[in-house]
Amino acid sequence: MKELKLEVILSTEKKQKPSFDHLEFGKYFTDHMFIWNYTEGKGWHDPRIVPYQPITLDPAATVFHYGQTVFEGLKAYMTKDEQILLFRPDENFKRFNRSNDRLVMPELDEEGALSALKQLIQIERDWIPTAEGTSLYIRPFMIATEAFLGVHPAKTYQFMIILSPVGAYYKEGINPVKIAVESEYVRAVAGGTGNAKTAGNYAASLKAGEIASENGYSQVLWLDGKENQYIEEVGSMNVFFKINGEVITPALNGSILEGITRKSVIELLNYMNIPIVERKISIHEIQQAYQDGVLEEAFGSGTAAVISPIGELLWKNEKMVINNGEIGSVSKQVYDTLTGIQNGIKEDPFGWAVRV
Amino acid sequence: MKELKLEVILSTEKKQKPSFDHLEFGKYFTDHMFIWNYTEGKGWHDPRIVPYQPITLDPAATVFHYGQTVFEGLKAYMTKDEQILLFRPDENFKRFNRSNDRLVMPELDEEGALSALKQLIQIERDWIPTAEGTSLYIRPFMIATEAFLGVHPAKTYQFMIILSPVGAYYKEGINPVKIAVESEYVRAVAGGTGNAKTAGNYAASLKAGEIASENGYSQVLWLDGKENQYIEEVGSMNVFFKINGEVITPALNGSILEGITRKSVIELLNYMNIPIVERKISIHEIQQAYQDGVLEEAFGSGTAAVISPIGELLWKNEKMVINNGEIGSVSKQVYDTLTGIQNGIKEDPFGWAVRV
Ligand SMILES: Cc1ncc(COP(=O)(O)O)c(C=O)c1O
Ligand SMILES: Cc1ncc(COP(=O)(O)O)c(C=O)c1O
Repeated sequence: MKELKLEVILSTEKKQKPSFDHLEFGKYFTDHMFIWNYTEGKGWHDPRIVPYQPITLDPAATVFHYGQTVFEGLKAYMTKDEQILLFRPDENFKRFNRSNDRLVMPELDEEGALSALKQLIQIERDWIPTAEGTSLYIRPFMIATEAFLGVHPAKTYQFMIILSPVGAYYKEGINPVKIAVESEYVRAVAGGTGNAKTAGNYAASLKAGEIASENGYSQVLWLDGKENQYIEEVGSMNVFFKINGEVITPALNGSILEGITRKSVIELLNYMNIPIVERKISIHEIQQAYQDGVLEEAFGSGTAAVISPIGELLWKNEKMVINNGEIGSVSKQVYDTLTGIQNGIKEDPFGWAVRV
Repeated sequence: MKELKLEVILSTEKKQKPSFDHLEFGKYFTDHMFIWNYTEGKGWHDPRIVPYQPITLDPAATVFHYGQTVFEGLKAYMTKDEQILLFRPDENFKRFNRSNDRLVMPELDEEGALSALKQLIQIERDWIPTAEGTSLYIRPFMIATEAFLGVHPAKTYQFMIILSPVGAYYKEGINPVKIAVESEYVRAVAGGTGNAKTAGNYAASLKAGEIASENGYSQVLWLDGKENQYIEEVGSMNVFFKINGEVITPALNGSILEGITRKSVIELLNYMNIPIVERKISIHEIQQAYQDGVLEEAFGSGTAAVISPIGELLWKNEKMVINNGEIGSVSKQVYDTLTGIQNGIKEDPFGWAVRV
């Protein structure tokens, strides 16, 4: 891989690190960040690693008004023998560019960005926590910075990478979460931006999330925007159901995010010879399976939450308790294998773990 | 109205003003801006008018990642006798709060914000252009500023007002624009954020806008996200059709913006005894009316574009030329009356124009 030539300005003061044993998600940031600027007609320029610092933008910058922004999320893990591993990072930068295209934002040099990320992580290696369930969360993102009012794509952009040592995304950790099926609000619809990783999708999701949270549920399960019955995904996870021995996950349809963990889970299940299908699945089918006693397991998949078993699904007034609210055996197997590969503890027959 | 007590720091240097005869939309900003901060537990604090200047934010600020942001757009006009008029500004701040609620953002003190706006405009009165078709565009907006990664509402926000002297939104001015009906992309769906004025809606609209623009169309006309046949609105305008003597505009359905110009046009048409109905209307009905020779006029309504006649609609391969591509008589009447009230030239029987 070609190395991106960049300027490095190291910080003179190091931050005090938080206790790595009680890490909350996304609260602490490392000493440095990567910045890369884009100007129409000039292309990408001035890649640099600088001390973590505030961004200064004109109040009329496009990102504040018209939401031209794309982000990604991946993780770095420290192995027992002090190697740093990334999980399928090329997939994240590929998705970054698919999102960019939808948002009419400039294409990123994927190799260059991955090279910059590796250089940044080397500098921040002391920030990678090692306790079980912890990792260094990586947030690449791009924002439109041009100062104007009026709805059209900007001419200047800034790509950045920031890093945050994290623990579990849900306070439940690997314990099953309770999820409410949303019947009023909609996250995305075919033809919209649902399969792009862009800010507006998350903004749209907050209201339903707040209501679910007030009622004691961790997140919501979204249904499709057209018929309000087909399962889409959870706030920041794709979703899998095991019904009568077969694992089912909603097919990619343009309105759900093409999760990299989702893709890996499918490949893993195939490898394990566990039946897995991607297809449309309605909430009524889930409910029927539950009533018939064949809804055996449910879990979410995502970079932040890894594999998160779902212990209860609330749909209108029906509380569906799955596998007695305990983690199921397929969920556990997938969790163990995936985290094992990510941490370098298990063999990686797929070549997913990438050394920094 | 109670006056908001605020700090005022005047800029020591004044910017050179652009030529007020050739104003582009949203390119120039005045010397000062208003800022107001919100902190959970403390409420709104530190309202201030300061020199127009960059905003400094942590790279992890919520607005960059999860798009918690709301904005408004209204205009100030200078009358012949040097009075400054605003057009129904209370409606904008009411809508601001409806948007805030959808985005789980803190409620704004509407009276306080309007008072701050008036004080800011007084300071910037030299920036209000007077030529026909020009005005001072006002952009109140709020962004989430808390630094964290993870999908939940922020605890800190910043509300701001910036001002920009503007000319016509479309290069066509009052001349009819060409609009392409969008059949692939979707802007918003019922249950989503379509009726909130938030960044993500506009980000979602860029791709279709780009394609339309490449084909020589000014903007797209959106269809509903469920059935892809009912007319919603244009990029930054609500839309009206005159068919067989009756004016029709899509009913408010949760996915289109509740335009203040739209509301005013409806009230005006009622006042003028011109038949106006709000109802669902499909693109097929428009096409049929066109083929039957009874599609008499079409126009968009919005703060930026005021009344913008539509001279051509493209739907799949059919080009519908409306009223020979010229402004229709109802469109012209509405345009004249509305701009007349806004500029203080015509009598205002509704009490819409508010003195600063
Ligand atoms: C909406 C949404 N769905 C699904 C996922 C899971 O995707 P991945 O496995 O690539 O992290 C995420 C998180 O990235 C997400 O934000
Ligand atoms: C999506 C959208 N629809 C309609 C409008 C028109 O609304 P108003 O008349 O309040 O300016 C606007 C502009 O504000 C808009 O952005």
